Formats: sequence, structure tokens, C-alpha cells
Amino acid sequence: MLRVPDELRALVEGYLGELAFTPELGGLEDAVRYPLESGGKRVRPVLSLAVAEAAGGVAEHCLPAAAAVELVHTFSLVHDDLPALDDDDERRGRPSAHVAFDEATALLAGDALLAEAFRLALSYPTPMVGRELAHATLAMIGGQYRDVSGDSADLTVLHRLKTGALFSGAVGVALWVAEVPESDQPVWRSFGDELGVLFQVVDDLLDDDGYAAAHGREAARALADETAARATARLEAVAADTSVLAEIVAGLAARTA
Amino acid sequence: MLRVPDELRALVEGYLGELAFTPELGGLEDAVRYPLESGGKRVRPVLSLAVAEAAGGVAEHCLPAAAAVELVHTFSLVHDDLPALDDDDERRGRPSAHVAFDEATALLAGDALLAEAFRLALSYPTPMVGRELAHATLAMIGGQYRDVSGDSADLTVLHRLKTGALFSGAVGVALWVAEVPESDQPVWRSFGDELGVLFQVVDDLLDDDGYAAAHGREAARALADETAARATARLEAVAADTSVLAEIVAGLAARTA
Repeated sequence: MLRVPDELRALVEGYLGELAFTPELGGLEDAVRYPLESGGKRVRPVLSLAVAEAAGGVAEHCLPAAAAVELVHTFSLVHDDLPALDDDDERRGRPSAHVAFDEATALLAGDALLAEAFRLALSYPTPMVGRELAHATLAMIGGQYRDVSGDSADLTVLHRLKTGALFSGAVGVALWVAEVPESDQPVWRSFGDELGVLFQVVDDLLDDDGYAAAHGREAARALADETAARATARLEAVAADTSVLAEIVAGLAARTA
Repeated sequence: MLRVPDELRALVEGYLGELAFTPELGGLEDAVRYPLESGGKRVRPVLSLAVAEAAGGVAEHCLPAAAAVELVHTFSLVHDDLPALDDDDERRGRPSAHVAFDEATALLAGDALLAEAFRLALSYPTPMVGRELAHATLAMIGGQYRDVSGDSADLTVLHRLKTGALFSGAVGVALWVAEVPESDQPVWRSFGDELGVLFQVVDDLLDDDGYAAAHGREAARALADETAARATARLEAVAADTSVLAEIVAGLAARTA
């Protein structure tokens, strides 16, 4: 019996809440925990767990990998919010890490989140989970660089890197944990790619920027709906019960926050 | 026939010079390469290769792990030099990364160096190389935090974390690559710990700070010599040709830059 997204989210929250960080971080741990406890939607780790269950794996075994993806996402937010990058003082209605603490602490907390993510990914006997995470992280950083350096001429490439890579990574780590043979992975991966586009276009609609600003809200809505339809079609090509994943697609397409 | 430190250093330089970074980094690659090409002494990766050879492994097989350690070291320098931390405009006689580029680029380049380090560590079939790197990195970050937050009451703990952890890590990754059984590792590891202390105390002597400032230059020199003697004694307890490692100890004890 597959668990619905809310149940998977509760699993993720429980795991993150009890996550033991490396003791040597000492007093930095507060600043590492702070941005993780900001009530995010946990879209990426829930996606990982749902893929793991749909692919015949055990969601609980996927928790370290799912948490690793969330830690990479959180690291990127903490560094993005710094004055040298987006200079955002607020994140989800709370002071950003560098405001709640200070710049030096936020910088180091971001570094620690990234290293802790790899520690979690490396808790598996196979190096594939960590390799997937490394590739997703590096592509994401490449996307952030293009964004801050103004090299965003091709919005599709920018989105594929900045947002899509970590969605693909969330799917990818789950495939390795669930031991899906590499030859069976492409259809799952193309589902992850569509989901990344869907998430980003809806984000642009909610923020009235990016694709929505460049091509208009109607075109953005149409692209979101087409992408959701393509993601669902990918799921139908998978020989498994993908009903929970279809629910995640519908939720992302309709989200309002 | 074991290779001498200069030959191992040439191996490291050649490997780093030809290292292919993740293509998705795009234009960020220049800023990732810049701090790596600053003519550092490559103490840590040379140590890794020397340990690998002494332990019966092949230095060339250890190159990705050794480079990973150097990338972690370089990441820490790039982030340490940022205005939010030490605010150093120069590094080894050249403009720091955030001066040569800008703060945003240096921040992201540091992030990329850390993620590339894990990519390299994950190129091995065993996850142990990556686990070793993750632990060393997290301890080092904990040390940096203690340093910037002024919690340096216990200089020994601070040094063990900020400097010692990555020296231990440099030894540790080489032990895994050379497939030294875990039960045979402790003596090698205690050698690495002594080497970290030696490096730091000599650093303090050269900079007239840290241990040298707190306890005087004579006491610092005495500690350096005792530590070098202990490191050499550890080597004598290893059933292998450790002559190159003894040469590294002597070089670190006598270094003047």
C-alpha cells in the first residue's frame, strides 16, 4: 500500500527533526538546523520517497538520500540569500540565516549543510547515490552562476540547471536506493525532468517573473499544463503503481504557494 | 621504488592541471580553477600519495582522492578569504578569488570546489574515501566556526579541527585507496594527527601567532620538534618503507614558508 504525499512528508519531517549532525560542528549546529526548520514544502524529498515506493523500494531506506537532497536545496537557499548574492533578508516569513545569525555563520552553515548532505548520501554501500547528488549539485551551482552573472539568455537552460537538476537528482537517488536497473531508469528520469520544469514554471507564475514575465501568464499557464500532462504520460509508461506520483504532479500543477 | 616528495608533487600538479570539471559549471570554471593554480605547496595531496605508496598502493590510483583533499583545502581558503570571514584581499601574492572575480563568483566557486571534491572522492567503488572526506570537511568547518566566533579558548582543539582534520583525512583517504585493513590503520592515523599538529605549530611560528603568540616562540619550537619526533616514531612502528614520509616530516619541521 503506497503512502500518500502527506504521510511521506511526515516521514521526512520526522527524519530531519531527529537528524544527528557531526558533533565537531559544535556551536554551528544551531545555524545548520535553523534553515532546515523553516516549514518548507519538502517537495524534493517527498518526491524521492514516492519514487522509491513506486519503484518497489522501502521509503524508510530512502530517507538519508531524500534528506541529502533537501540539505543541498537548503544549502543553496542559505548561500543565495547572502548579501553577495540575492541579499534577501527574509525566507518563508522568517529572518534569513545571515540575519538570524550573521554572514560568517550563515556562510559556514551553508558549507556544513552541503558536506552533511554528502555524508548522508555516503551512508549507502553504493557510491551511486552520492554520484547522483554531486552531479545535481554541480549543475545547480552552474545554474546559480548563470543567474547571478546575468547569463540567463536561455531561460530553459537556466531553469534546467538551477531547478531541474535537483528534481532529477531527487528521482535519481531514489532509483539507486530502490535498486532500479540502469536500463529501466530513463523513463523515470524523464519524468523527473518534466517535474523540474513544471515546478519552475508554476514558481514563475506565482512570482510573476521568469517565464511568466518573458512570455506572459497565459503562455506560462499553458506550458505548466502541457508539462504536467507530459509528466503524467511518462508515469503511464512505467510498469508500476504510480498513483502517488500522479498526485504529486497534480499538486505541483495546482499549487498556489 | 618509492618516489620522493618532489616527484609526487609533480604528479599532483599534472593531475590538477588537467582535471576536467563538470561541464554544467560553464563560465564559473575559470573561478574554480583560479585558486587551484596559485602555486600552493600541495602538502596534503603529496602526503596522500606518499602514504598510498608506503602502504603498498599505487600513487596514481590515489590521485583523485588526493586531489579531492586539495580541493576541500582550496574551498576553505576561498570562503575564508571572503569579506564576511577573514576579508583577505591577497592569497599567496595574488588577488584572492573575490578580488580577482567578485564576491558572488568566489562564493559559488568555493561551493563548486567542495562539490567537485566529493565527485572525485565518489569516483572510487568504495564509499569509504568519500566518508573520510566528509568527516574531515565537517570537522574543519567546525574549526573555522570556532575560529571566527572567537571560541578559540582551547587552541589545541581549534587546531585539531581547523588543520588536523584535513591532514588526518589526507592520510585516511590514502589508506582506503591502498586497501589497508581497518585494523592496521590506527598507527597510520596517529601519524597523520601528529603531522597536523606539526604543520600548524610551524605555521604559528612563521606567522608569529596562535601557539607561538600564546606560549612564546621557544615553547612553540620545542613543541614542533617533539611533534616531529613523535611523528617519526609512529612511522617506525609501521611495517613498511616509510622513508619518504620521514622526509616529509623533516621538511615540514624545517619549513620556512
